[in-house]
Amino acid sequence: MIILKKAVLPKGFKANGLSCGLKKSGKADLALFYSDTPAQAACLFTSNKIIAAPLKLNKQLLKKQGLFQAILVNSGNANCFTGIAGVKKAKESADSAASALQVKQGMVLANSTGIIGKALDVSKIKKALPALVKGLSAAGLPKASEAIMTTDTFKKEIAVSLDCGKKKVIISACAKGAGMISPDMATLLCFIMTDADITAKALKQALKESVEKSFNCLTVDGCMSTNDSVMMFANGQACNRRISAGKDYRQFAQALTYVCLKLAKMIAKDGEGATKFIQITVDKARNDLEAKKAALAIANSNLFKTAVFGENPNFGRIFAAVGACGIEVDEESVKCKVSPLKNKEVDVYLQINKGKGKATVYTSDLTPEYVKINAEYN
Amino acid sequence: MIILKKAVLPKGFKANGLSCGLKKSGKADLALFYSDTPAQAACLFTSNKIIAAPLKLNKQLLKKQGLFQAILVNSGNANCFTGIAGVKKAKESADSAASALQVKQGMVLANSTGIIGKALDVSKIKKALPALVKGLSAAGLPKASEAIMTTDTFKKEIAVSLDCGKKKVIISACAKGAGMISPDMATLLCFIMTDADITAKALKQALKESVEKSFNCLTVDGCMSTNDSVMMFANGQACNRRISAGKDYRQFAQALTYVCLKLAKMIAKDGEGATKFIQITVDKARNDLEAKKAALAIANSNLFKTAVFGENPNFGRIFAAVGACGIEVDEESVKCKVSPLKNKEVDVYLQINKGKGKATVYTSDLTPEYVKINAEYN
Repeated sequence: MIILKKAVLPKGFKANGLSCGLKKSGKADLALFYSDTPAQAACLFTSNKIIAAPLKLNKQLLKKQGLFQAILVNSGNANCFTGIAGVKKAKESADSAASALQVKQGMVLANSTGIIGKALDVSKIKKALPALVKGLSAAGLPKASEAIMTTDTFKKEIAVSLDCGKKKVIISACAKGAGMISPDMATLLCFIMTDADITAKALKQALKESVEKSFNCLTVDGCMSTNDSVMMFANGQACNRRISAGKDYRQFAQALTYVCLKLAKMIAKDGEGATKFIQITVDKARNDLEAKKAALAIANSNLFKTAVFGENPNFGRIFAAVGACGIEVDEESVKCKVSPLKNKEVDVYLQINKGKGKATVYTSDLTPEYVKINAEYN
Repeated sequence: MIILKKAVLPKGFKANGLSCGLKKSGKADLALFYSDTPAQAACLFTSNKIIAAPLKLNKQLLKKQGLFQAILVNSGNANCFTGIAGVKKAKESADSAASALQVKQGMVLANSTGIIGKALDVSKIKKALPALVKGLSAAGLPKASEAIMTTDTFKKEIAVSLDCGKKKVIISACAKGAGMISPDMATLLCFIMTDADITAKALKQALKESVEKSFNCLTVDGCMSTNDSVMMFANGQACNRRISAGKDYRQFAQALTYVCLKLAKMIAKDGEGATKFIQITVDKARNDLEAKKAALAIANSNLFKTAVFGENPNFGRIFAAVGACGIEVDEESVKCKVSPLKNKEVDVYLQINKGKGKATVYTSDLTPEYVKINAEYN
């Protein structure tokens, strides 16, 4: 696998981003990802019981079909808690995008991110669609990556290539997320495109595995979003021998995990108000699940996160968090190492000594700036 | 039931507090609560798997006997994650207090609060014991309430009297807590004294009920402490007809719940860095348990708490928190009312419309000052 220096798109994919006026700041807020041939889709969604309107629409579509051609994403409004009117608006924007792209109705998935509970002004999206489609380009990933941002301070994108038989396969992806980040099935918004030829089953399996090891090991504030979606398109244009199992599958899944993990780490680094990136490994827990539970308990402890911000080695808070999370642990056998807190990147290594379970999670510190951003966000 | 204007102690009780030098600030850090006759004790402890040394000692003592005469409490050091040496030190300080009080060894319970993972300097406690015992007084509750404080900005005490047959019974209590506050079985430190004559069974039952409706409905930061204890002494000196069940029990339990709830609300108001007191009621959930789960999910959402601090009506965050907490809820039937955010006290009322469950919890907002306090605490 090679990490490409420029975040190019795989064969047959185009993207674009621009401002349609949903964000008062005038920053880009509408993105389009497009494959010129129908692509196999695999999607994972938040497990929040209150889900945004576009997720309701996408879930309906994904029950009916496996092939799609585009993803339309707006930032500046989550189109969530907007009732039946919200779902209609999500459909209207997806259908309008399909018309503008001259593809069949139902071939476009819609996504929204931003404030919850406000009516989405679809007319702004519809007006901007002709220009958005016209500007689609094979070099358009950076523009799209920027248009999906909300409180993110930098865009998050990556592209890798790998050999599959005698052919090169590319995986390109971008993600947004900085707050309301907590793992469960999927998290934040992430769009992944590949020209690999891969069976629907293998694609779903690879995505599930990769998300489990990356976005589901990530927390900024323990707050689970209503709009979290990871969407992946595979259009087969690399013409590789079809990936289904064995070595090809393993290589592909490994590259995909690398892509997702890289984006997850970028999100932790861009955690709202964050000054530190924190990596927490819990080792020798009773099993992997308990290791992850303990690591996430530390990562979600406001007291631990403020101590890291203050470069204050108050490690009793680590033990208090682990003791409270419900896993098998006792004072006598637990051991902890923490790298110097003055560094930008902090590693926590905790040994439970109860078994062979291991997990690593990623987070950021809790700062007065996080409070300020979220006190003012509206 | 009458709320007494001065927080006096019940018959036969004395208390005192002073500085023994554990706190660098020189503030009071050692408290003693004493009954001149053996008192029936009921205690509830944190469910954290990592518990402080004095809790290990107290649990051993409570297995062996039901009657005690004193509680020794130090602030400035939690004596937690201090191994076997920590338990020895807890026993040494309790035994030294017993000697100084001229009561039998084993009649004193010990408590500690403060930083986790540092060795406790018992010699400071032992040196201060003669003066602490000498200063014991029936008017000493305020001094003791002050000596148990850590990041608290004000002392928390209350006394009520109620009629029981033809006799007056007094319940007096104090508590400490401002951060690392999250409900589970018991929370923070709270010491309750009564001169009521009550059966051991009724005392335990009344305490359990009262804590469930008060301290277990309280969260500041969702971080569960290693030292949480609620301890209650009843010495029977009011000579009332013995409380065991019926109307007497109900009146007593009601007064005790009032005492605990009043202290719990004081703790929420004194939440580290807090500028607002928040009361969250979830109504018409499938059952009381789901109502409480939803209310606590809102109360522990950093995003909701920062919005209240910012007086920013970003109520989507309420729905996001409830949707993520695992209870039965859907967008179509949920309704929410929030009182004006500019006030010091904010009421949230959420109707789930799935059943008859109801719960109220108490918390505070999340502010830059909370981060500052906990970044610097050491």
